[in-house]
Amino acid sequence: MDPAELLIGLAIIWLAAKVAGEAMERLGQTAVLGELLAGVVIGPGVLGLVHESEALHALAELGVIILLFEVGLESDLGDLLKSGPQSTLVAIVGVAVPLLLGFVVMRALDQPPLVAVFVGATLTATSVGITARVLADLGRLQDAAAKVVLGAAIIDDVLGLIILAVVTGVVQTGSVSLGGVTVIAGKAALFLIGAIALGIRLAPPLVRAVGRLKARGTLIVYSVVAAVVLAAAAHAIGLAAIIGAFAAGLILTRTERRHHVSEQIKPVADLLVPIFFVAIGMKVEPAALNPFAPDTQLTVIIVLTAAAILSKLATGLAVYQRGVHRWPVGVGMMPRGEVGLIFAGVGLATGVVTAGLYSALVVTVMLTTFAAPPWLKALYRRSGTRLTG
Amino acid sequence: MDPAELLIGLAIIWLAAKVAGEAMERLGQTAVLGELLAGVVIGPGVLGLVHESEALHALAELGVIILLFEVGLESDLGDLLKSGPQSTLVAIVGVAVPLLLGFVVMRALDQPPLVAVFVGATLTATSVGITARVLADLGRLQDAAAKVVLGAAIIDDVLGLIILAVVTGVVQTGSVSLGGVTVIAGKAALFLIGAIALGIRLAPPLVRAVGRLKARGTLIVYSVVAAVVLAAAAHAIGLAAIIGAFAAGLILTRTERRHHVSEQIKPVADLLVPIFFVAIGMKVEPAALNPFAPDTQLTVIIVLTAAAILSKLATGLAVYQRGVHRWPVGVGMMPRGEVGLIFAGVGLATGVVTAGLYSALVVTVMLTTFAAPPWLKALYRRSGTRLTG
Repeated sequence: MDPAELLIGLAIIWLAAKVAGEAMERLGQTAVLGELLAGVVIGPGVLGLVHESEALHALAELGVIILLFEVGLESDLGDLLKSGPQSTLVAIVGVAVPLLLGFVVMRALDQPPLVAVFVGATLTATSVGITARVLADLGRLQDAAAKVVLGAAIIDDVLGLIILAVVTGVVQTGSVSLGGVTVIAGKAALFLIGAIALGIRLAPPLVRAVGRLKARGTLIVYSVVAAVVLAAAAHAIGLAAIIGAFAAGLILTRTERRHHVSEQIKPVADLLVPIFFVAIGMKVEPAALNPFAPDTQLTVIIVLTAAAILSKLATGLAVYQRGVHRWPVGVGMMPRGEVGLIFAGVGLATGVVTAGLYSALVVTVMLTTFAAPPWLKALYRRSGTRLTG
Repeated sequence: MDPAELLIGLAIIWLAAKVAGEAMERLGQTAVLGELLAGVVIGPGVLGLVHESEALHALAELGVIILLFEVGLESDLGDLLKSGPQSTLVAIVGVAVPLLLGFVVMRALDQPPLVAVFVGATLTATSVGITARVLADLGRLQDAAAKVVLGAAIIDDVLGLIILAVVTGVVQTGSVSLGGVTVIAGKAALFLIGAIALGIRLAPPLVRAVGRLKARGTLIVYSVVAAVVLAAAAHAIGLAAIIGAFAAGLILTRTERRHHVSEQIKPVADLLVPIFFVAIGMKVEPAALNPFAPDTQLTVIIVLTAAAILSKLATGLAVYQRGVHRWPVGVGMMPRGEVGLIFAGVGLATGVVTAGLYSALVVTVMLTTFAAPPWLKALYRRSGTRLTG
């Protein structure tokens, strides 16, 4: 690739993200909504100013890793564990209801059972990236509801992983082994518990040792290495890489240098995180929304989107803790984001999902992703501080 | 590419860079020498832990752009202009002597005239990245000699561009037009003068306008956009991209928010800059240095390296300003770095240079690149503050 192409692409992405983000903030919305819309406009679907490339993809990937690392740094492990049972219940409802509702509506549309199961599985995804970013933009990461949603989104990733394994297992071999499912669940649990337990013991002395080094920039580089290594480890066992990055943030927030790390990761996040959200926006194909296209999937899109929204709002009903509000939990679980796109992509690759249905799934994922930021913002604005419980 | 591959590659690069950089600093050397050596060790030539990819290449490219942007932020345009005539003379000597000496030694080794001209042209390159980084590591960017070298390296890039155009013109058409040479020189001068003159007028009100925006991270994103846009513009007219980034730094250092920009670019540079130097180290093929290999180029390497070192040391003799020491100028002009590699690559691509001679050129470029950091360090250590003039 021509080096200038990447530089110009980055300049367009940053400018569009900043201008649209600023405009959205002035309109009372969150900056992330502006970044997503900026991606739609500059992407191949509309203006075609910037095209996907391996380099952009890598920067976007680093961006979401840094985002979740930063969210981890601002989270407290004790709080997350305290809302553990509540988060687990929200996650279970957030997987079971979308799976069921997706299956039912697809069967009602005369789709074969296997396709209906796969669509249901896609609707179980939760993009912790979008919700975490919106809550960070609103300054609400310390809310009781935010902690429940973050915890639930992470558990949801583990559950989604199991469901994906089951569904692709059924697709490829016609059956599924209970042993395989147990192994996946065990690996995921072992990783999270092991990494965090070990990290909390090892990190403080390591951070002190790094503090004695002379070279410039040592703390920030070793911190990002921790995020990247845990992200790669999470990916290696089949989890989303961002979960490892979140774990690294949780670990480092327990060390004496957490304020330095937070301070220094900020400009890095300011540069890399918007690339991720713009890149998500770039994946939108507005043509799929055209109701006059010959192969329009509009009915499927409307039905799927309704199912996607309602089934995740149902997670609000799973809230039993006092002081945790139902609506932010339900809406916070709603965006499917990049996780939903990955599910839909697996469906297309394995041949379960047709190209037309794939487009419909992508549009559904996008609609839930774009609807969550303004909705969450409206919830918090309407009720002021009452929602912080 | 597998996302985990990039993450693991980055973790290895950062760890190796930090460990080797720290070790070199403890041995009284500069961190950049450690990063170059780390690249050799983890690269394909020795351990083969990390391989080149488009994503790594992009991150390295961003790294050197951020480095030169940072150096520009720490430089003063007035000082650079003050040493302008001195820098120009150093640059002319630093191009003429290597070209001549390279030609003479290659003719003495019975190479055809065209090959001898091309090798001479390769020896004219100066890597401002290496020298700027060493001076920054040593805290000597404000030295009189540093300003002469930085200015000379930038003028050298323009001269090198002209020479490359002439040499490839001769190779491809057998002739060279004076008009073409004038156009290249004019474009380069126009870009530098135009960008800086315009930037100095426009930047202060723009920075004030950015200061009124609400979204997080606005200042750092717009600053990096300025660096990236000027880098792409420099590249578009045929200059090295880093010259545009340097100009952006020079411009922004004249605004009221320069300290904020400096402060926020630091962690970004800490992460990205080592990737560039490790990537340069990764290009070394130690096998080319083996004197027992059947097609050994050892004689050529020794002769070329001696010519490369002596011809750039000659720039020290071009120093006439009082308070500017000759040795740091001569040694500072020595590293060919990535610029020399680009020249050699053009020679290989146009068929002027054989594969064997190309390897010899690469090794020569590397030897001058690796010798400069410890040599500069030794110069500054031996004479203490006396060299700062």
